[in-house]
Amino acid sequence: MLNQRSLGLGNQPNKIRELFAYGLQRKAQIGADKVFDFSIGNPSVPTPAKVTETLTTLLREEDPVALHGYTPSAGAAETRAAVAESLARRFGIDAKPDQVYMTTGAAAALAISLSAVCSEGDEVIVPTPYFPEYGVWAATAGASMVEVPCRPSDFQLDVPAMAAAVNEKTAAVIINSPNNPVGSIYSAENLTEFCDMLAAKEQELGHPIYLISDEPYREITYGDEVPFVPDFYEHTIICYSYSKSLSLPGERIGYIYVSNKMANAAEVTLAVQGAGRALGYVCASSLFQKMVVACVDEPSDVEAYRANRELLTGILDELGYEYIAPQGAFYLWTKALEADSEAFCERAKDYELLLVPATCFRSEGWVRISYCVSSETIKNSKPAFAALMNSYQRA
Amino acid sequence: MLNQRSLGLGNQPNKIRELFAYGLQRKAQIGADKVFDFSIGNPSVPTPAKVTETLTTLLREEDPVALHGYTPSAGAAETRAAVAESLARRFGIDAKPDQVYMTTGAAAALAISLSAVCSEGDEVIVPTPYFPEYGVWAATAGASMVEVPCRPSDFQLDVPAMAAAVNEKTAAVIINSPNNPVGSIYSAENLTEFCDMLAAKEQELGHPIYLISDEPYREITYGDEVPFVPDFYEHTIICYSYSKSLSLPGERIGYIYVSNKMANAAEVTLAVQGAGRALGYVCASSLFQKMVVACVDEPSDVEAYRANRELLTGILDELGYEYIAPQGAFYLWTKALEADSEAFCERAKDYELLLVPATCFRSEGWVRISYCVSSETIKNSKPAFAALMNSYQRA
Repeated sequence: MLNQRSLGLGNQPNKIRELFAYGLQRKAQIGADKVFDFSIGNPSVPTPAKVTETLTTLLREEDPVALHGYTPSAGAAETRAAVAESLARRFGIDAKPDQVYMTTGAAAALAISLSAVCSEGDEVIVPTPYFPEYGVWAATAGASMVEVPCRPSDFQLDVPAMAAAVNEKTAAVIINSPNNPVGSIYSAENLTEFCDMLAAKEQELGHPIYLISDEPYREITYGDEVPFVPDFYEHTIICYSYSKSLSLPGERIGYIYVSNKMANAAEVTLAVQGAGRALGYVCASSLFQKMVVACVDEPSDVEAYRANRELLTGILDELGYEYIAPQGAFYLWTKALEADSEAFCERAKDYELLLVPATCFRSEGWVRISYCVSSETIKNSKPAFAALMNSYQRA
Repeated sequence: MLNQRSLGLGNQPNKIRELFAYGLQRKAQIGADKVFDFSIGNPSVPTPAKVTETLTTLLREEDPVALHGYTPSAGAAETRAAVAESLARRFGIDAKPDQVYMTTGAAAALAISLSAVCSEGDEVIVPTPYFPEYGVWAATAGASMVEVPCRPSDFQLDVPAMAAAVNEKTAAVIINSPNNPVGSIYSAENLTEFCDMLAAKEQELGHPIYLISDEPYREITYGDEVPFVPDFYEHTIICYSYSKSLSLPGERIGYIYVSNKMANAAEVTLAVQGAGRALGYVCASSLFQKMVVACVDEPSDVEAYRANRELLTGILDELGYEYIAPQGAFYLWTKALEADSEAFCERAKDYELLLVPATCFRSEGWVRISYCVSSETIKNSKPAFAALMNSYQRA
C-alpha cells in the first residue's frame, strides 16, 4: 500500500502552478505579449552581479574537493558565522553561529522548524490569508492549522481573535511579514500588542509557544521598516531565504535562526538539527553556502519592483479597483469585483488576465496580483483590467 | 513541548562525524601527516573539469532569472529528459521523463521514497551491515527496520534469511550495491534468487513490496558489472546521487527513478511527489539540474580510487589482515582483530589510525576503512597497521 497521505498530496492540484501552465499554453496560442500573467512569485529581477561573480570566482579559484564537499549538517562554520555577524550588526542582537542552521530554502526551514517544535495533536495558529503549504508541513509533524483572519480593514494581526484561538494545544504561531499574498508589514505597534498577548498566554498555559517568523521578503520593502521579531518575543524562530532577496528561488538556500533571547535556545537548535535529519536533509548546497559568506549583506534590487508597484497601483487607481497598498514583497492584494474570487479570476481569464483567487490562500473575496513581471506586461494590461471592470459595471 | 523525536535525533551522537572531528583535532596537535584518517566517505577526487566548465558557462551565458528560477517540483523538463534518456541508452529500458524526480541528493531520495511507499506500522527489510540513517527516514514514515545479516562468507544477500523476514507488514526492502560499508556488489545470480523470492512473496501476500535500490556508487567499480536492478524486479525504485560519481557531495543533487516496468508507476510517482511536498522539498537546485543535462554521462574518475585500493589491499595482505575484496565504492571491510569492533577501533587510535567500527553499521566484528584519501596517507599508514597487528600478536 502506498502512503495514502503522500499519494493524496501528489494528486492534489496546485492551482497557482496550473494557472501558470495555462498561461504558458495561452501565450503559445495567441502570443506572449497578449497574455498578462500575474500568477507566480518568481523574482523578475536578476540576481545581483556580485552573486554571479562570487560563484564564478569560487568555481575558478577554490579547491573543488573542498568547494563541493559535505558541510556539517547545520552549515559550514564560516557561513553560520557570516549570517550570525550580519544579524548581530544589522539588528543589534547577540546572535551566535550556534543558533544558525543553514537550510535548503525557506520551505525546508519551515518544515524543519515545525517538526522541531510541534508534535502529534498540536495546533499551529496562522493569520489568513496565508501560504497554505504551511499546513502540509505542520501535518508532517502531526499538527493541524488553526486559521484566524487578519483585520479586514488593514490586514494587520487581529490580536483579540488570535488570543481566542490559543489553547493548551497551541505549539506555534506562524507569521509572514512582509506578507504573501497581501504585501502588508505588521507594524511595531501591532506586533507589540500581539506578542504581549502571546507571552501572557505562555505564562497562563505554562509552556512555550514558538513564533515562527517566515521572512523571505524582509529586504523587499518600499519605505516601511520591518520590525525585527526577536525584539518583540522571546521564543522566536526566524525562517529566512535568499530566494527573493537575491533572486535565487531555484537554488534553495536559506537559514533558520533560533533567537538567542530564548532561555532554551540550545535545546531548540538541537531539535531543529534532529528534525532536519528526520526529513532527509544532509546540508545546504556547499557552493551556495560559500556564496552567502561573500554576499550576506548584498542589498536587494528593489527598484524594479517599486516601479512596477507605482505603475500597477496607478492603473488600478484610475480604473477604480480597491486594494491594500503594498508595503513590501511584490504582491498586490486586490478586491475581487464579486464575492466569489474564483469566479472573478475565471472571468479575468476572458481578458487574458491571470490572477490568483483568495481561495488559494484560504481566504475569499480578493485576488493576488504578482507584480514581479516586466513593466510592459503591466502597462499593456491596462485595457484588460478596464474591460474586466467594465464587464461588471454592465451587469 | 519540543518534538521529542527531533530532540532525540539532534542529541544523538554521530560517531563517524565525531571520529572525523577527533581526527582534525589530533592533526592540529601532532601534524596532519601523522594521523591516518580513514573515517569518512568524502570523495578525494575532484569533480570532473567538465562539471566546473559547465557551471561556469551557465553562470556566464544564461539569463540569471531563468538559470536560478524555480523548476517544477519533480525537476526541469530538460533535466528529467536527460536522465531518462541516459538510463534508456545505458540500460536498454523504456525510461520516460515522467518517472524521474530530481532530488536534493540521495538522502532526500531515500527519505522521500520511504515516505511514499511506507505507512505507520510498516516494516522495511535491510541487509546488514548498512547505513543506519535509513532507519531514521523510515521512522519518519512511521515504519521500522528489520535487519537481516548478509552471508558472512561473501556479504551477498542471504536469501533464505531475507525470505524469513518478509511478512504482511513488509512494505519495502532497501539494498545498496556497490555497498557502503562493504564494497560488495550483489551478483546477477544473487539478485535473481533474491528478486524471485521477493516476487513470490508479493504474490503470496497480495501486495507490492517495493525494492528501493540506493545506488550512489553505481559508477565506482573495479571491473565487476553492477546488475541493473529494474531488470530483476518489477517494483524497483532507484535512488541515485551525483555525490560520489561526480564528487559533489555537498551540492545535494540526485534523482529518484520509478521503474517503468511497474504497472502502477504513475501512481508511485505521484506518491513520491506528494512525499517530497510533505518533507519540505520545493525543487533540486536549478543550477545543478542544468549541470546534469550537460554532464549526465560524464564518467567517474575511478583511477585514483583503484590505485588506493591496490595500495591498501597490498599493505593489508602483507600484514595478514583479513578483508572483503572491494568490488565497488571506496571502502574496505576489514576484520577486526578482536570481536569488539569498538574496542579494536579505540586501540587503532593509539596508532593514529581512524577506522569506523561495524557497530556504526549495525554489525559487529569488522571495521570500515574509507580509502577516498590521498595515496600518501595510505602509504604512510603501513607502520601503524603493522604496529596495531603486532599489539594483538604480543597479547
